[in-house]
Order: sequence, then structure tokens, then C-alpha cells
Amino acid sequence: MRDYLPEDIRRREFVIGVIRRVYERYGFEPLETPAVENLETLMGKYGEEGNQLIFKILKRGEHEASGQADLALRYDLTVPLSRVVAHYQSKLPRLFKRYQIQPVWRADRPARGRFREFYQCDVDALGSTSPVIEAELCAAVAAALTELGFEDFHLRLNHRQLLTEILDAAGIPGELHGSALVALDKLDKIKMEGVAKEMTERGISAEAVEALAEVFRGRIALDVLTGDPMAGLQSVADFVSGADDDPPSIENLRQIFTLTQNTPAAGHVTFDPSLARGLSYYTGAIMEVNVPDLAGSLGGGGRYDNLVGMFLGQSVPACGFSLGLERILVVMAERGMFPPTLATTPADVMMAVFDAADAAHAVRVAGLLRQSGLRVMVYPDADKIGKQIKYADSLGIPFVAILGSNEIAAAQVTVKNLKTQTQATYDQAAAGGAILEGLKQRG
Amino acid sequence: MRDYLPEDIRRREFVIGVIRRVYERYGFEPLETPAVENLETLMGKYGEEGNQLIFKILKRGEHEASGQADLALRYDLTVPLSRVVAHYQSKLPRLFKRYQIQPVWRADRPARGRFREFYQCDVDALGSTSPVIEAELCAAVAAALTELGFEDFHLRLNHRQLLTEILDAAGIPGELHGSALVALDKLDKIKMEGVAKEMTERGISAEAVEALAEVFRGRIALDVLTGDPMAGLQSVADFVSGADDDPPSIENLRQIFTLTQNTPAAGHVTFDPSLARGLSYYTGAIMEVNVPDLAGSLGGGGRYDNLVGMFLGQSVPACGFSLGLERILVVMAERGMFPPTLATTPADVMMAVFDAADAAHAVRVAGLLRQSGLRVMVYPDADKIGKQIKYADSLGIPFVAILGSNEIAAAQVTVKNLKTQTQATYDQAAAGGAILEGLKQRG
Repeated sequence: MRDYLPEDIRRREFVIGVIRRVYERYGFEPLETPAVENLETLMGKYGEEGNQLIFKILKRGEHEASGQADLALRYDLTVPLSRVVAHYQSKLPRLFKRYQIQPVWRADRPARGRFREFYQCDVDALGSTSPVIEAELCAAVAAALTELGFEDFHLRLNHRQLLTEILDAAGIPGELHGSALVALDKLDKIKMEGVAKEMTERGISAEAVEALAEVFRGRIALDVLTGDPMAGLQSVADFVSGADDDPPSIENLRQIFTLTQNTPAAGHVTFDPSLARGLSYYTGAIMEVNVPDLAGSLGGGGRYDNLVGMFLGQSVPACGFSLGLERILVVMAERGMFPPTLATTPADVMMAVFDAADAAHAVRVAGLLRQSGLRVMVYPDADKIGKQIKYADSLGIPFVAILGSNEIAAAQVTVKNLKTQTQATYDQAAAGGAILEGLKQRG
Repeated sequence: MRDYLPEDIRRREFVIGVIRRVYERYGFEPLETPAVENLETLMGKYGEEGNQLIFKILKRGEHEASGQADLALRYDLTVPLSRVVAHYQSKLPRLFKRYQIQPVWRADRPARGRFREFYQCDVDALGSTSPVIEAELCAAVAAALTELGFEDFHLRLNHRQLLTEILDAAGIPGELHGSALVALDKLDKIKMEGVAKEMTERGISAEAVEALAEVFRGRIALDVLTGDPMAGLQSVADFVSGADDDPPSIENLRQIFTLTQNTPAAGHVTFDPSLARGLSYYTGAIMEVNVPDLAGSLGGGGRYDNLVGMFLGQSVPACGFSLGLERILVVMAERGMFPPTLATTPADVMMAVFDAADAAHAVRVAGLLRQSGLRVMVYPDADKIGKQIKYADSLGIPFVAILGSNEIAAAQVTVKNLKTQTQATYDQAAAGGAILEGLKQRG
């Protein structure tokens, strides 16, 4: 687990601020749940491996000695959401649209670049099966990424049922679907030839492999996917439907693509018949967002109409998308995408203190500068002025304000620009404006 | 522990936003630490009772079965700060000023109004013993409360050493200091007569009790403390010093009071010789902030020059203040202090969908409205229009935008104001401005 030092937090808060603002514009409301859930709420929801990775908390008080756990740290944000929906059903809107940005914990073996505490950034809409939900989720995710400065992302869509239908149409018997999907999942890594080889080894017929290769032709390199998703969808529709009517999965994707065309997702949404994601969980459309310079995705999601029912005993349709905050931060840092206005120093200006007897003046003038909106640190000790300036410079603080006895007598303050090594004296009331101007010129 | 529903989060984020902005203006930087610490880092730092209240986490993997704990949930923000300072010493500024706003966990017996997960909001400055530190902390806390809309708060100051000196000067022998402070702590509740009675019962002489009553005269009702802190300090100085020089504690408080006079703390800072706070921890000035309509404090802090040394093996002077976020929220809610601009509904406008075939238009126009900065929810299903409007009304959404076939043909949209029950039709590009205007008029 990590400590977040100031620069990390400023960057994370910037990204969270953008995502939050965009999601609110799409009518999603904030939700937060406690870090700790009842152990039984979490157990069995993530499979056997997941059970192992849940951090379990000892019973409080005297029962602690028994080594028995009754609580646990949140493992994701979807199960807490389901619990909240079941618990507060009468207090929540029938169409509950929420976003939740909080850390989750997984007791993974410690490894480089893998953390046991990390942020998830989820957005979910519950209560409707309409494709408008999927389209608005895609639009909101695309708007958030666009506002963060991403231009080259692909939002790949597929449909859980359509995958089955493709495998059926290729003539792969149901009992080999799992094997086929495991191979298919490696398409990005080993290309269609590799997938074909593995499928053949797994006992899938040459004819079926050939048919699948046909369907996934053009899928190999992501950049050919930027065309019209409807064209790709039509060719898969022809493959699975033949002379029959298109199955509902095709119709559903068609509606979603149509709906996204006049949203920020337009030009980013693509159809990827090979997209599989976690299969057990999803029931309808599935989606994933990628950028070229990151192996793995920036996030993903889909429709899961059965999960909430596990808590409520009554089915509630749901669809969600989870953005990987840490990955977004990594790509933005590598690409230098953070705005230059984001603070990187503890203060804009350091108030030096010449003489301990004058400290009250320093504190007062610091107050004036703060009223201008500046971030001001008062150097607390009357060290030699050279030492004070050196300290400000070592922290990258761009300006030092100096109050000598002359300045105090004349209600002035001297401002030193540490980069240009120039200084000027201002009326105390005017210094803030001058420093703000200087900050702007530094860019 | 609680789930935070949308209104709770909006209020909390508003308060945190103000505090964060103010603390940044005072040169404090954000720090966050993981929820989970090594168990041994926490054990023994909070006394025997504290050890009991720490949530302990089972060892991961196969070791889980042993019932052995190696991790624990953060109990406060001060011990993690001390660990960070010890661990990152070379990466942190010599004068490290940080704020930290995160939840902490305590395994308290569940009780009404007491939560086992709650937010702390700490600000600390490390690396200097200068009274400028205390003065700037008081100024920052006062500025934050003022910006939140509080006007009637008192920032009471005292000094850990001065308390000892007062008890000495009153003739109370050292071994009765503890008893005297326990009685003194009840001054607000049982007034000076009650304190005097209890002190007498605890074996303190009538003369000593009489002398203390003299010192604390005028302390009984908080509202008489709003005068000049210097006058009160002088009268206590006369009491403890007699013909000798004033002790350093008096001199230190005098400097702090002088320094705060030209800051937002002026008019709020008072001297309270009876203020005790947790005695084991503090080494110098101590402070507490109160409002008249809340029993207990909104927050408090003080100088603790020895705690970080426990981790670093090298003394680091430190001074901090912790605001009680939950209490601030309670008082602000009771007083109706939240700005009316704070959203209380999931959206500003709901986009109705007349016909499923027109949903793409609804999604498109919703995008236009969002570009105006509005929060827009698209109703996902083509239910009867009356049902859709009723739904918006039930959520308090003030406007509904309606797209019928006439409007679509004319590139217009009809906007219904649910409060006034009036409606008007606008060009689609102009509707956003009209709704914003309507929202302003609602105030």
C-alpha cells in the first residue's frame, strides 16, 4: 500500500474532479460506502480465489482472542452498491444512477506495480433495460476522457449473447465455447494465426476456426476499428443470422451505436466481436476502453441484470462502467497531460521573516497576499535571509516576499523572483496582484 | 458505520473543499496514507484502551487460519503522519506542513450518534518551535470556519506548562495535580462552585481552591472571554510569576496572541487558563474551538514536540489542529448554513422520451443542455409522458425537457417548469440558457 505525497494527491484530485463533474452532468449522483462490510456480505461473491483475497477483520472486544473474523475490507464497489440498493430501496430513486470513487483492498501477494489498496471509479445505472443506459454510459465515459485530454481512445463494444451466437454459428459445440474464448482472449497478443493454432490444439475443427477468422478479420490491429461500427456489426449479423431475423443482441448493439452517434462517444465507439471480458458476471452489452500506448484497458463494464437480485431477492436491471484511476494517472503522467496550472510546489510565495520582532508584520502581510488568492508560506524562524531564500528555492517556491524595517515603515514589501533573480518593491496592498501577474508570465 | 447518500456527500465535499482551499492558501500540502497500517505501528500509541479499539486484520493467505493479525485499520491521522515523516524524511521539506482529511476507524461499542468509521481533518506543521506556527494554525482554522459561515466561534488557548504553573502557584502539591485537572475539566458543566466542592473532596486545601477560583473567575461563561486575551493573560501572569520574570509559557502565549491579532483569528482567540485537553500528549500551547450551540468542541490541537521522535529516534517539533468534520456538518445542518447552490436533486433537468424511436434525439439534445453546464438525466424508457413528468417531480428535478415530433422537426424543445407549471418552446441551442436562467430565478 502507498502513501500519497502532495504531488500524487493533486494529480489524483484533478482527475477525480473532472470525472465527478462530468458524471454529475450526466445525472449520476455520488455514493460512498464504509471501508468495512460484514464478512458474509462479501464471501462467495468473487469466487474461491476472491474469498482468499478478502482482508478479514477480527471480532472486536474480548472475542478478538478467538481469531474469528466478522468484518472485512471492501473488495470492489459493485457488491457494496448492490447491498445499498437492497437496503435503501425505498429511499432511492427507481432509476438509481450513482458514481462512487473510493479505494478497495485486495490481499494480493505484494508485487511490483501492484497495490493492495487502490482506487476504483465506478458509474452505474440501475432500474432500466433501455439501450439509452448503455449509450449514456459510453457518452459519459467518453466525455470524461475527452475532458481529461484523451483523444485517441477506443470504446470497444460487444454483447455477451452475441459471443455465444458467433461461436454457435461457427459450428463450435457448446462444450468447447469456454476453450474457444480462452484462446480468443489472446487475440491482441498472438494475433489470429496464434488463436487459430491454439483453437485447433484445443480440438476445434478447421472449418470452425476458418469461419471465426473470417468474423474477426480486421480485428487484429485496433486502428482499423475506427470506421463505422454499423458496417462491422452488419457483417457479423450476416454471419450469425443468415436468412433469419437478427438476434436481440445485434438489435441491442445497433440501438446503442445509433444512440451514441450524437454524443461525445461518436468516433470512439467501435464494434469488437472478439471482446469477451469477465464472462460469468455480464448479461448483455459489454464494453472496454483502450489507448494505444497502454497494454490492458483504461476501464470497462457492461450490463449485469442479475447481481443485485442476489441481495434483494428481486431482479434489478443494472449496467455500469469502471474506470481504472491508477492507469489513467500513469498514462497522463507519461504523456505530460496534467495542466501546468496544477500546483507542484507547497506555496506560490514564501514570506521571509527578517527579525523575530517583525513576525507579526510578516503574518499580517501574508494575510494580504492570501486574500489575493495566493498560497503563502510564512517562514517561521528569523534565520539569515540567505538561508530563508535558499530554502524557498529548494522547494521550487517561485517568489519570496521580504519585509525589512524600511518596507515596514513605508507599508511596502519587496518581492524577489527566484527564477529571474530580479526584485521589486510594492505597496503591501498591491504586492499580491504583482505576484499573480508574475506567476501567469511563468506559465 | 454509515453509507453516505448523495446529499451527505455533497455537503461533506462542500465543507472539505472550503477547508482544503483555505489550508492550501496557508501553505499546507495534502497528504494521504493507506487505511491499513502495520499492527505494531499502532499498538501502544493510544494507551491500553486504545489498543482494544484498534480494528485488527488477519494475516493473508494460509496464515489466516491461525487467527493472527499483522495489520490494522488507521486509528487516527497523527501516528500515520509520524510514520510518514520518519520514513520519507529526505523527500519531505524540512518544515513539513500538511493537511490530511481521511476516515479513521475505532472498534467502539455501537451507540447512537457514534460511528466506528469517521472522518478526521488534520492540519500539522513540523520542524519549527516558532510561535508563528501556532499563530498561523489559529489563523488557518479561523479562516476556514469563517469561510464556512461561522462567526461566533471561540478559539480558546492555553499552555500545557502554564497549567502546571497555575496549580503550583495555587499551592497544590504535584501529586494532586492530576485530581485537580480532572475536577477542572468539568468547569463548563458544574461551574466553579462544583469544581471547588470536588477539589475539596479530593483533598485540596481551601486556600488553594480559593486561589484557583480567583484565577478562573470570569471563565465560567464563555461569552465573557471575548475581550482582550492579553488582559486575562496578564492577570494569570501576575498570579504565577509574582515579582519574578514571567515563565516561558506566558511569554509564548503572549507572542502567539500578538501574532494572531492581524489574522482572521483576531476577535476569536481567547485565553482560557482552565483549558486542559489530553494532557499526556501535548508539550506547549493547546487550543480548542467552540460554538455556543454545541456541547463539546468543533476541534482542537496543540504542540507535541516529542511524538514524532518515537518513530524517528530524533526529536521533531510539531504542532497541529484537528477539526471535527462530522460536528461541523451537524451544526451547519442545524443552522441551515449550506449554500442554496448546493445541489439537492439528481439533475437540473430531465429529458423525457416520447417515443423509443426518438431516443437518439433525446440523447443528442441532452448533450446540448450539458454543454450549457446543466446536470441532465435522460429518462431511459418511453413510458407515458405523464408518468415521466411525475417521476421527475418526485425527485425534485425542477425542469423537464420534452421532444415531440413537432419539436424534432423544428429543431426545438419544450421546457416545462414543474414548480410554476408553465412551459415554453425554445430552439434546441437556446434551451440550456433559458433553463439556467430559470434555475437562477428559483434561487
